[in-house]
Amino acid sequence: MSSSPPPAESQPHGSSVGIVQPQFLEFSEPLTLASGAVLPAYTLAIETYGTLNADRSNAVLVCHALNASHHVAGVYANEPRSVGWWDNMIGPGKPLDTNRFFVIGINNLGSCFGSTGPASIDPATGKPWGPRFPVITVEDWVHAQVRVADRLGIERFAAVMGGSLGGMQALSWSLTYPDRVANCVVIASSARLSAQNIAFNEVARRAIMTDPDFHDGDYYAHGTVPRRGLSIARMVGHITYLSGDSMAEKFGRNRRDAAPDYQYGYGIEFEVESYLRYQGEKFSGYFDANTYLLLTRALDYFDPARAFGGDLATALAPTRARFLLASFTTDWRFPPEHSREIVRALLRHHRPVSYAEIDAPHGHDAFLMDHPRYHSVVRAYYQRIAEELGL
Amino acid sequence: MSSSPPPAESQPHGSSVGIVQPQFLEFSEPLTLASGAVLPAYTLAIETYGTLNADRSNAVLVCHALNASHHVAGVYANEPRSVGWWDNMIGPGKPLDTNRFFVIGINNLGSCFGSTGPASIDPATGKPWGPRFPVITVEDWVHAQVRVADRLGIERFAAVMGGSLGGMQALSWSLTYPDRVANCVVIASSARLSAQNIAFNEVARRAIMTDPDFHDGDYYAHGTVPRRGLSIARMVGHITYLSGDSMAEKFGRNRRDAAPDYQYGYGIEFEVESYLRYQGEKFSGYFDANTYLLLTRALDYFDPARAFGGDLATALAPTRARFLLASFTTDWRFPPEHSREIVRALLRHHRPVSYAEIDAPHGHDAFLMDHPRYHSVVRAYYQRIAEELGL
Repeated sequence: MSSSPPPAESQPHGSSVGIVQPQFLEFSEPLTLASGAVLPAYTLAIETYGTLNADRSNAVLVCHALNASHHVAGVYANEPRSVGWWDNMIGPGKPLDTNRFFVIGINNLGSCFGSTGPASIDPATGKPWGPRFPVITVEDWVHAQVRVADRLGIERFAAVMGGSLGGMQALSWSLTYPDRVANCVVIASSARLSAQNIAFNEVARRAIMTDPDFHDGDYYAHGTVPRRGLSIARMVGHITYLSGDSMAEKFGRNRRDAAPDYQYGYGIEFEVESYLRYQGEKFSGYFDANTYLLLTRALDYFDPARAFGGDLATALAPTRARFLLASFTTDWRFPPEHSREIVRALLRHHRPVSYAEIDAPHGHDAFLMDHPRYHSVVRAYYQRIAEELGL
Repeated sequence: MSSSPPPAESQPHGSSVGIVQPQFLEFSEPLTLASGAVLPAYTLAIETYGTLNADRSNAVLVCHALNASHHVAGVYANEPRSVGWWDNMIGPGKPLDTNRFFVIGINNLGSCFGSTGPASIDPATGKPWGPRFPVITVEDWVHAQVRVADRLGIERFAAVMGGSLGGMQALSWSLTYPDRVANCVVIASSARLSAQNIAFNEVARRAIMTDPDFHDGDYYAHGTVPRRGLSIARMVGHITYLSGDSMAEKFGRNRRDAAPDYQYGYGIEFEVESYLRYQGEKFSGYFDANTYLLLTRALDYFDPARAFGGDLATALAPTRARFLLASFTTDWRFPPEHSREIVRALLRHHRPVSYAEIDAPHGHDAFLMDHPRYHSVVRAYYQRIAEELGL
């Protein structure tokens, strides 16, 4: 809807969707959340790429991870560096081919890139929601997103797809609206966080919440930003996104300074320190701290098997989608075992599922990279969908 | 020297050294550090267990890790919970048998348990050293510790032993004073930190240094303690000390509250959060923040191969000790590959080395536990030493 026409000639691995722009959809009907809280109204920022076909059968919803947004592919006008976070995956001739599919990215409710979140104004008070913004679950996101589908007249998605936290949303879609998801693509994700996963999230939250500039979440009113805490949270996150091997290859023990001797101090001595500080600093300049708390809590809480005594197979029995799961050998944030657990649970109820365990060195971040085998698996999966739908 | 007599009857795995007390040794000769800085004088807190024999051949130096001290074994009078950190390893009839060996624990220079460190008074100013305390390296520790050996008249240690950071010190002893170390026992350690190791240290340091109560390291003068930062540092540390599997077994997704539904908030929901907060809070109440910076930097800087273009075998060629190395399969802080690298380097110059890779589920912390195979390996190694020395 909003994308410019694709370039005339496709490159070998496809081309960009080009200039894009977001839309902001308003929903005025109250949304009751898992917590029991009711959100009176909300806005969702979305982007779309490609063209919705006449029978509205070619729509693919792409769900984002912790720090990403609805800006999945393409670039914004006059901002050549604003490339969407999954631009290598989505575009004309790319694995998710926008010449055939109509792709939708939606910024999660509670995020900070245009959808209603803690930094938004609470209409009841005229002030930012702040810590009064309700905790949102993965299931709440799905209920919020279904209204986008309704508004666009999409009865059933050709696929719902996501990586990491986005994969949880895709899985939840297949459970919550089984008849509206033909295919579910879950990449580098998990059906429930491990204790270690929760532990890292808790470190991030404590760093933010104990920053004196956090002011119990009302930092907007104080004109402050808990940048120290956000920066620490981001540094911890980055370590978990990369494999030990890829950090060794990228940074090793390389030092910032060419001098033969150490500086004997606590400034930046090693390249890896420089990288982490930079990433932390940058992140703390644009990401909302309350959103970080909210997103990590949604990760912690996601556990569809919980209502079934931990039995994931029974929890996933209502799904009607076909599934593609992919994991990466060096991903220690959501190791392949997390994906295998989902695959086994689906197979126990004879759900159709394909699974690819990709031998890639880049850790969790591999899901954002254009590893050839990974992309060819996704490409083949979407080609099959396109053929079945006659796209 | 300071230990009370062992209990009359040994238990199957040995008994405690009983009531112990520290000594504080003063050294007035200036110590020139790797950085070029000169420490005019210093105190080292030590403890000893067992009896030094007539020819002073039965001494074993035990080096401690990040947050430990000279209090290696036994308990303090009227403090029944003050058990030494390696009490399961050291005592009458234990793997390092104090009926045969004279064991010395020394608090590292720069630490905060009685040895001179950043919280000590700088005689030149009459105020705490604070951020003006020089950065100390593993090699500096060894040079500081050799004076303890000199004062006790110990020409050659039967063994120098340590785990984690303590293992680095043992390795450094074997390099720095090859003729004074008969055996070198290096457990769950490393010849150089990986980029990921350094990254976790940097997160801890940033958490401390960006805490407003840190005051550039002069928090003593401000009457503050950077407890928020220390707490975050400790939480991160704890995650890296435990294996993912042991966290899963110990905490899983267990919740603190028995209520069926989530609390939908950012308080303590999961047991693992409760554990980490408690550990962080406790640590921040007794550990000196400047010491934490100093110890993590010593870890980062340790790299004996650095002066030899990264060639560890050449770096270790001057050693004259026999070696025992041990690692633990689930230790992801210092994985077995770190130990294997040392073993390979020693073998390249035909140094005598034994190596045990222990299949234990507890991660890095396994080195502090009394895993049967691990303890029997250490026991057998010390029995051989005792037999050779006729102890």
